Amino acid sequence: MKPKTKTMKRILVIHGPNLDLLGEREPGIYGRLRLEQINSALKKIAKAKKVKLDIVQSSYEGQIVERIIKGRDKYDGLLINPAAYTHTSVAIRDAISGTGIITVEVHLSNIYAREEFRHKSLISPVAKGTVLGFGPKSYTLGLLALIDLLNAR
Amino acid sequence: MKPKTKTMKRILVIHGPNLDLLGEREPGIYGRLRLEQINSALKKIAKAKKVKLDIVQSSYEGQIVERIIKGRDKYDGLLINPAAYTHTSVAIRDAISGTGIITVEVHLSNIYAREEFRHKSLISPVAKGTVLGFGPKSYTLGLLALIDLLNAR
Amino acid sequence: MKPKTKTMKRILVIHGPNLDLLGEREPGIYGRLRLEQINSALKKIAKAKKVKLDIVQSSYEGQIVERIIKGRDKYDGLLINPAAYTHTSVAIRDAISGTGIITVEVHLSNIYAREEFRHKSLISPVAKGTVLGFGPKSYTLGLLALIDLLNAR
Amino acid sequence: MKPKTKTMKRILVIHGPNLDLLGEREPGIYGRLRLEQINSALKKIAKAKKVKLDIVQSSYEGQIVERIIKGRDKYDGLLINPAAYTHTSVAIRDAISGTGIITVEVHLSNIYAREEFRHKSLISPVAKGTVLGFGPKSYTLGLLALIDLLNAR
Amino acid sequence: MKPKTKTMKRILVIHGPNLDLLGEREPGIYGRLRLEQINSALKKIAKAKKVKLDIVQSSYEGQIVERIIKGRDKYDGLLINPAAYTHTSVAIRDAISGTGIITVEVHLSNIYAREEFRHKSLISPVAKGTVLGFGPKSYTLGLLALIDLLNAR
Amino acid sequence: MKPKTKTMKRILVIHGPNLDLLGEREPGIYGRLRLEQINSALKKIAKAKKVKLDIVQSSYEGQIVERIIKGRDKYDGLLINPAAYTHTSVAIRDAISGTGIITVEVHLSNIYAREEFRHKSLISPVAKGTVLGFGPKSYTLGLLALIDLLNAR
Amino acid sequence: MKPKTKTMKRILVIHGPNLDLLGEREPGIYGRLRLEQINSALKKIAKAKKVKLDIVQSSYEGQIVERIIKGRDKYDGLLINPAAYTHTSVAIRDAISGTGIITVEVHLSNIYAREEFRHKSLISPVAKGTVLGFGPKSYTLGLLALIDLLNAR
Amino acid sequence: MKPKTKTMKRILVIHGPNLDLLGEREPGIYGRLRLEQINSALKKIAKAKKVKLDIVQSSYEGQIVERIIKGRDKYDGLLINPAAYTHTSVAIRDAISGTGIITVEVHLSNIYAREEFRHKSLISPVAKGTVLGFGPKSYTLGLLALIDLLNAR
Amino acid sequence: MKPKTKTMKRILVIHGPNLDLLGEREPGIYGRLRLEQINSALKKIAKAKKVKLDIVQSSYEGQIVERIIKGRDKYDGLLINPAAYTHTSVAIRDAISGTGIITVEVHLSNIYAREEFRHKSLISPVAKGTVLGFGPKSYTLGLLALIDLLNAR
Amino acid sequence: MKPKTKTMKRILVIHGPNLDLLGEREPGIYGRLRLEQINSALKKIAKAKKVKLDIVQSSYEGQIVERIIKGRDKYDGLLINPAAYTHTSVAIRDAISGTGIITVEVHLSNIYAREEFRHKSLISPVAKGTVLGFGPKSYTLGLLALIDLLNAR
Amino acid sequence: MKPKTKTMKRILVIHGPNLDLLGEREPGIYGRLRLEQINSALKKIAKAKKVKLDIVQSSYEGQIVERIIKGRDKYDGLLINPAAYTHTSVAIRDAISGTGIITVEVHLSNIYAREEFRHKSLISPVAKGTVLGFGPKSYTLGLLALIDLLNAR
Amino acid sequence: MKPKTKTMKRILVIHGPNLDLLGEREPGIYGRLRLEQINSALKKIAKAKKVKLDIVQSSYEGQIVERIIKGRDKYDGLLINPAAYTHTSVAIRDAISGTGIITVEVHLSNIYAREEFRHKSLISPVAKGTVLGFGPKSYTLGLLALIDLLNAR
Repeated sequence: MKPKTKTMKRILVIHGPNLDLLGEREPGIYGRLRLEQINSALKKIAKAKKVKLDIVQSSYEGQIVERIIKGRDKYDGLLINPAAYTHTSVAIRDAISGTGIITVEVHLSNIYAREEFRHKSLISPVAKGTVLGFGPKSYTLGLLALIDLLNAR
Repeated sequence: MKPKTKTMKRILVIHGPNLDLLGEREPGIYGRLRLEQINSALKKIAKAKKVKLDIVQSSYEGQIVERIIKGRDKYDGLLINPAAYTHTSVAIRDAISGTGIITVEVHLSNIYAREEFRHKSLISPVAKGTVLGFGPKSYTLGLLALIDLLNAR
Repeated sequence: MKPKTKTMKRILVIHGPNLDLLGEREPGIYGRLRLEQINSALKKIAKAKKVKLDIVQSSYEGQIVERIIKGRDKYDGLLINPAAYTHTSVAIRDAISGTGIITVEVHLSNIYAREEFRHKSLISPVAKGTVLGFGPKSYTLGLLALIDLLNAR
Repeated sequence: MKPKTKTMKRILVIHGPNLDLLGEREPGIYGRLRLEQINSALKKIAKAKKVKLDIVQSSYEGQIVERIIKGRDKYDGLLINPAAYTHTSVAIRDAISGTGIITVEVHLSNIYAREEFRHKSLISPVAKGTVLGFGPKSYTLGLLALIDLLNAR
Repeated sequence: MKPKTKTMKRILVIHGPNLDLLGEREPGIYGRLRLEQINSALKKIAKAKKVKLDIVQSSYEGQIVERIIKGRDKYDGLLINPAAYTHTSVAIRDAISGTGIITVEVHLSNIYAREEFRHKSLISPVAKGTVLGFGPKSYTLGLLALIDLLNAR
Repeated sequence: MKPKTKTMKRILVIHGPNLDLLGEREPGIYGRLRLEQINSALKKIAKAKKVKLDIVQSSYEGQIVERIIKGRDKYDGLLINPAAYTHTSVAIRDAISGTGIITVEVHLSNIYAREEFRHKSLISPVAKGTVLGFGPKSYTLGLLALIDLLNAR
Repeated sequence: MKPKTKTMKRILVIHGPNLDLLGEREPGIYGRLRLEQINSALKKIAKAKKVKLDIVQSSYEGQIVERIIKGRDKYDGLLINPAAYTHTSVAIRDAISGTGIITVEVHLSNIYAREEFRHKSLISPVAKGTVLGFGPKSYTLGLLALIDLLNAR
Repeated sequence: MKPKTKTMKRILVIHGPNLDLLGEREPGIYGRLRLEQINSALKKIAKAKKVKLDIVQSSYEGQIVERIIKGRDKYDGLLINPAAYTHTSVAIRDAISGTGIITVEVHLSNIYAREEFRHKSLISPVAKGTVLGFGPKSYTLGLLALIDLLNAR
Repeated sequence: MKPKTKTMKRILVIHGPNLDLLGEREPGIYGRLRLEQINSALKKIAKAKKVKLDIVQSSYEGQIVERIIKGRDKYDGLLINPAAYTHTSVAIRDAISGTGIITVEVHLSNIYAREEFRHKSLISPVAKGTVLGFGPKSYTLGLLALIDLLNAR
Repeated sequence: MKPKTKTMKRILVIHGPNLDLLGEREPGIYGRLRLEQINSALKKIAKAKKVKLDIVQSSYEGQIVERIIKGRDKYDGLLINPAAYTHTSVAIRDAISGTGIITVEVHLSNIYAREEFRHKSLISPVAKGTVLGFGPKSYTLGLLALIDLLNAR
Repeated sequence: MKPKTKTMKRILVIHGPNLDLLGEREPGIYGRLRLEQINSALKKIAKAKKVKLDIVQSSYEGQIVERIIKGRDKYDGLLINPAAYTHTSVAIRDAISGTGIITVEVHLSNIYAREEFRHKSLISPVAKGTVLGFGPKSYTLGLLALIDLLNAR
Repeated sequence: MKPKTKTMKRILVIHGPNLDLLGEREPGIYGRLRLEQINSALKKIAKAKKVKLDIVQSSYEGQIVERIIKGRDKYDGLLINPAAYTHTSVAIRDAISGTGIITVEVHLSNIYAREEFRHKSLISPVAKGTVLGFGPKSYTLGLLALIDLLNAR
C-alpha cells in the first residue's frame, strides 16, 4: 500500500450478501432497521469524525474481492460485514491480507450463538478487530474503532 | 413476505452452475436430456396446473442470491437445483431463509451415492422438501410437489 | 434377479418402525394423516397406473430384510420409508443391494432439518432416488417416480 | 432478575486472570496500557453516561462466578473480559445465563488470530455481543454498547 | 467434447481471484513479478511451441465456471491457477470434470507449507497434474506440461 | 396420548437384550442377582405404591418398539433398561418420543466407566431421567422416581 | 482410606457452582425448589436412615478438591452435584479417585438432553453410580443409593 | 458357562442377515456357492473331526442374540458370520461376551477392502480369532480353527 | 506378473519385525511357540501340499519391500505377518499391489482386541484374505488358504 | 521480567491439586513418598546448588496463577507439577508465558501411558522442558535442569 | 550448509521404494516407462544444463535419510520422489529440513486423485515446490525447476 | 529377560535418525553441541556411576529394532532418542515392550511446542519416563534417571 498523505481518511464500507433484505428478514435475528438507516448513521459519524465514506452492498463474492483490490490505493480502511461469506470465502480473506488494508469486521447477530457452521470466521484472522451481536450498533461501534485505528497509525 | 391475493401462483425456477452443460456432461451421471427439454417439461406442467413460471440458469452464486432476494415479492415459490453450490453456499441458504420463500430442492443425480463432500447439503435444512436421483424427473416431481405446497397454504 | 416378462409391474411398499403411530405422533413433524390414508392414496395411484402393490409395515429390521429377500423374484420395485432404520441398518442396505431391486426411498419429514444423527442415510446410496420432506406426498411422488423407473427399464 | 426502577444503571466490570499483568505482559499482543489506565477510561465514560460502575479483577474462576451470582440483584449489566476462562469455564457461562444479566464480552487481542484452542469461546453464546481485537479500546467500545443495551430495555 | 482436427492447439489460461495484485501483494509469498510479466512469459512459450493462448483473470467463481463451459468447444487445454477458489469451489471442479477439458493446475506458493485450510485442493483430483511452489515458474512449467499432454493425445 | 382417568397408574417395565443372562453373565460388571429377583423387588414396590406393573424382556429391537407403541393407551409410564440398544437404537428412541410416554432409563452398570462406544445413549435425551451404576438398585430407584413423576403430573 | 469402625456413617454433600441460584435460575431446566429445601429433604432422610450429613456449596473448584481431600478420614461417602465442573474438572475427578471415597453423582437436569458439551462427564467414570434428570428428586434418590452402598460394604 | 464333560464338542454355526441370498447376490463380492453348499462342507468337516454341528440362518438381530444366550449350556463353540450386524450390533457382541462362548468370526469378503463403514467390527474384539476374505473357504478354515481351540482347552 | 507354467507353486513367507522374539515376548499375547517351530509346521504343510517355501524374517521395512519386489517373478504367493508394519507401511502395501502377488495376511494376536492404533491395517485392503487371533495356528490356516487360492487360479 | 543482579537464584516450586495426598493416593501410580519428603530432597539440592527455594501447594487454579504473577519480580525460575491442571488450565499457561518466567514442568507419573485426556499438556508448550514418569525423581531431575538453565542465562 | 563456489551445480536424485518396479507396475497409474528411461532423460537434461547428477533408488527409509545427510556438503539440490514414504516418513522430512538442501518433490501419479491416505505429504512443507501427475514428465519438469532454483540463488 | 547377576549395569544408548547432523542442523531448535560431545558427557557420567555404556546412532528403523532385540540379554537399560521415529514407529515400540528392557526416552527439543504431528509419541507409553526440551542436558538427566531406575530394581 502506498504511503498516505496527511489528508482526510477514506473508508470503504462493504455490506455482504442478503443485507439488502435488512429490516424485512428475520427481525428476531437482525433487527428492524433497514440498510439505508444504518448507512445514514454511518455517514453521520463519518461527517462528525471528518472521514470520507464509500458504501457498497454486493451479493457477489467476486465483486467484493474486486472492490477491495481496486480500492487498495483509494481507501485507508475497510469496514466489512461479510455476512454469509464470513464462513466460506477464502478469496475475500486473501483480498484483505493481500492489500493489507486496515479492516474491521462487524456482524449484526451473535454468530457464536447460532448454527455450528457460523462459528468459524475466515475473515477474523485477517481483521484487526471484530464487533458482533449488537445489531446495527455493531456497525457504528465498528466504524468508531476503525477511525481510531486509522488515526493512531 | 407480503400477503398474496388469490391469483395465479408464480414460481421461480433456478438452475445452478454447470447445468447449461446438461446432455453433454457426464451422461452416466446426469442423463442425456438438455436443459431446454427439462424447461419444456416444466412449462407444460405449469400450464396444466395454471401456475406462472420464470426460469433462470446462473453460474454466479451472487446472481442466484440476487434473483431470490429481488423476487421476494414476485414469486410464491422457488424450485432450485443448486448444483455445486448445494455444498458450499451459505449465501443462497440465507437468501432462502431470509425471504422465507417456499422452496423445493432438486438434484439430477443421487448426491448421497457420490463423493463424500457431496453428502452435505447446506440448502436442504431451509427447503421444505427435496427430490433427488431421478434425473430430469427430479425436476418435474419437484415442481408438482411445490405447486401442491403452494395450493395448500 | 430373474428376467421379467411384459406383465403388470409389482411393487412392494415397506413402512418402517413407528409408522403405525402416524397421525398421532408428533403431527408437527409427521402430519395428521394416518397410515391407512396414505395406503389408500398409494393404491389409487397403483390402480390408475396399472401396477400391483403389496404393502407391509414392520418394526423389525430382520422382518424388513426378509421381506425384501423373499420378494426378490416377486417384485419389480421397492418403495421404502425406512424410518429409524434409515440411520442404523446396514442389513436393509445389504438386502437392497444384494437383491438389486429398484428402490425409491421416501421420508415424511425433512431429515436434514432435524437432529445431526438423522443426516446420514445408509439407504440413500443404494436407492435410485429419494423424496423427502413433503409429508404423505413424499410417498405418492415416490411411487410415481418408481413406476416411471420400472416402465423405463 | 427483579424489576428495575428508573434509577441510574449499575454495571459490573470483571477482568479475568492475568489481566493484572497488563502493560507488562506480551505488549505485542496486549498493548502497553496498564489495567488502572483502562479502568480510568471506563470510569470517565460511566460518569459521562451517568451509570454506576464497580470493577473487579480476579484470577479465581470461583470468585468470578460468585461475583456474578451475588451481584444479580445489584447490577443491570456485566462487562467481562474472561481472559483464559473464555475457553475453559462452563461455570462462568452458567452464572451469566443463570442470572440472566445483560452481558458484553470483550477481548484485548483478536483471539481468532491466535492459537486454535483460543478460537472457541464458551462465553460468547450467552453474551449479547462481543468486541475483540482493539486492545484497551475493546473495553470502552464494549461499555458504550452495554450502556446502549441497558438504556434500550 | 467434440473431436479436434489436427490444427494448432488452443489453450485457455485462467488466473483466479486476487492474482491482479501480483507483484504488490505479500512478495515474501508470491514473488515480485506482475501478472503481465507472467503472461508475457507464457505467450513466448506459446509462440515457440506453436499453440494459441487466451488469458483471463477473474475474481468471480461464476465467471471462471462460464469461461470453462463456454470454451468447451474452443479450447484443447486449460492452465488454471484457481487461487482462493482452489479450496472452496465445487463449481469450478464440476466445470472441469463436466467439460472433460485437459487441465493443469498451478500455484505460485507451496500451498502445503501454509495454513491448514490451504492443504485441501478441490481442483487437484480433476486436474491431470499440478505444479506448485515455484512462483511464476510454476506457470511456465505447467504450460510446458500441458502442451506435452495435448501433443501426446 | 389420551387423557388418563384418576385410577391406578400402569407402568411397563422393559428389559432389553441379554438381560435374561443376569446373575450368570459377567458378575463383576452386572452383579449376581437374577432377573426374577429384580422383578420381585419391582413388584413389591409396585404393590406398596399401588401401581400396576407389566414386565417384559426382549432381545428384539422391533418387539421393544412394538410393545411401546401398542402400549401407548395402556401405560402411564415406562421403566426401561435398553441394554445394548441404548447405543444403537433410533427406533426405540422414536417410539418413546413418538408416544410421549413418561420414561425412566436405568442401567445396572456405570456405562460411562466402560468402553467408549457405551458412553453415548440414544435413549437419554428422550427419557425424563436416568439412574445408572447401582446394579439391581438402579431399577428400584428408577421405579420410585417414575412413580413420583407420574403422581406429580 | 483408613478402616472404618462400626459407627454411624458420615456423608459429605457437595453442591457445585451456581447451585446457590437454585429456585431462581432457569426454572424450566432446574425446577423451583431452593437449595435449603433440598438440604432439608436430605437431612430428613439422613435422620431416618441414621447417617451423619455435612453439606457444603462452593463455586471454587479448588475448594471442592480440598473438601474432598481433607475429608478423606472423616467421611464414608460423597454425594456430589458437580454442576459446571462435571464437564471441565480433572482435579475433582482426581480427588475422588485419589481418596477412594464412595461417590454418587447427581444432576438436577438431564445433561444428555442439553448442549453437546454437557454430554461428557469427567466425574461419572470415578463415581459408583449416577442419578440425573429428576430435579431435586435426583438428590434424594442419590442419597438413598449412597447409604445403601455404604451399608453394603 | 457350566463345566463340560469329556464328550463330543458341540458347535453352533450362525449365518447373519442376507446370507440366504448367497450364490445369487453380488457374486463378484461373495462368490457363486449357495448357503447349502457351505453348510455341506461344514458338516463334512464336523463329521471328520467328530464334532456336533447345529446351523442357523437369521436376519433378526434379536433371534441371533437369543440363539447364543439359549445355547449357552448346549454349545462349546460358536462359528459366526455376523454379516451386516458385524458393524452395528452391540447386542450380539454382548451375547458373546456375556455367555463367554468360544467364538470364531468369519467373513466371505475382505471387509477391509470395502466401504469405510465396514472397516469396524464390533464382534472382532470378543472373538478369539477372525478369518476373512476367502469366500466360502473362510467358513471351513474358521471351523477348523474353532475345533482346534475347543480341543486345546 | 509373467504367466506361470504348470509347475510346483512357490510361496514366500515373510515374518515382520520383532517376530524373532517369538516365544519369549509377551506370551500372554503371542503364545509360547518359537519362530522355528512355526516354520517347521509351515514346511510340513508345504511338503504335504507339494509347494515350495522360502521363509524370511526381517525388521527392515525396506528389506521386506525388496524381497517382495525381487521375488515378483519367483513366487506365486505371499504369506505375510507384517507385525508392526501392518499399521504404518504404505511401502509394503505398494509392493504387494505393485507386483500383484497373491497375498494372505496373518496375525498371531487379535489386533482388533488391542490398542486403537492396531485396528487399522494398511495391508488388509491389498491382501486376498486375512487370518488373525489364532496364534501360530493363524500361519498354518493362512498357508492352507493361500495354497487353495493358488491352486484355484 | 526485570534484569537480575548477580545474586543467588530464587526458584518457586508449585505443587498442583491433590498432591497433598501423595504417599496415600494410588501408590501404584504415584509412589509411596509423601510431599514433605520430596520437599526435603528439593531443599537439599537447593542448598548444595546455592539457590533459594519457596515451595507452595495449592488446589486452586486461581491461587497458582496469582503466585506466578505476584512472584514475577521475585523468582528467577519456576518448577511446577500442574497435576490435574496440566490438561485444563489456560490460565496457568498464560501466567507462565505472560511473566516469561523460566519454567520446568514435572510429573510423577508417565501421563502419556494413562487415559487419553491426560496426553495433552497445555503447559508443555510454554515450559522450557519437561521431566515425567520417574516418580519423586522427576522433581529432583527437574530442579537440576532448572538450575542449569538459570545458570546458563 | 557450507558456501558453494561458482562451479557446476551438483544434484542428487532419489527414487523411493517400489520405483524399481516402474514400467511393470500398475501402468494405468504409473505409465509404461522404466526407471532407466527416466534416468536417461534426466541425464540428458543435466548434460544440456551443465549440472552434475547422482541418481539412487532405495526402498529403505534409513538409507534415503543417510544419503541426504551424507550428501549435505556434496550436493546443491535434491530431486526426490519419496513414493510411499511421502505419507509416512518424518525422518526424510527432518533430513531435508535439517540439511537445508534445496528440494523439489515429484510424483508420477496425481496423489490427490487417489486414496485418502495419499492426500497428505509430509515432504511438501519442506520442499521448495512440487510437480505431480505428469508421469515421467514430472521428473523432467522437476529437474528443470530445481536447476532454475539453484541458478537463481 | 534372563535374570541379572550383581555385576556392573550395562546400558545401550540409541540415537535415532538425523542425530549425526547435530550441531549443524537447526541450532535454534537443537543446540550447537555435536553428537560426540554428548557421547563424551554420557561416558563421563557412566564412568562416575560405574555403568557400562554402548552407543549407537542409526537412521534405520529396522536396525534400531534389531539392536534392541539382539541386546535383550546384554543390556539392563535403554536410553533412546527416537527422533523422527518417535512419531511413526510401532516397530521400535514393540521391540521395547517385547524385550521388556527398562527404557528412558529423551528429546533435545520440546516436541510439544513444535508441529502438531510431533505431539504424539508412540514410544512414551512403553518408556518408564521421559526427559525433553533441555537440549543435550536431556541426555545426561535421562542417563542419571535410568541408572537410578536400574539400581532401584
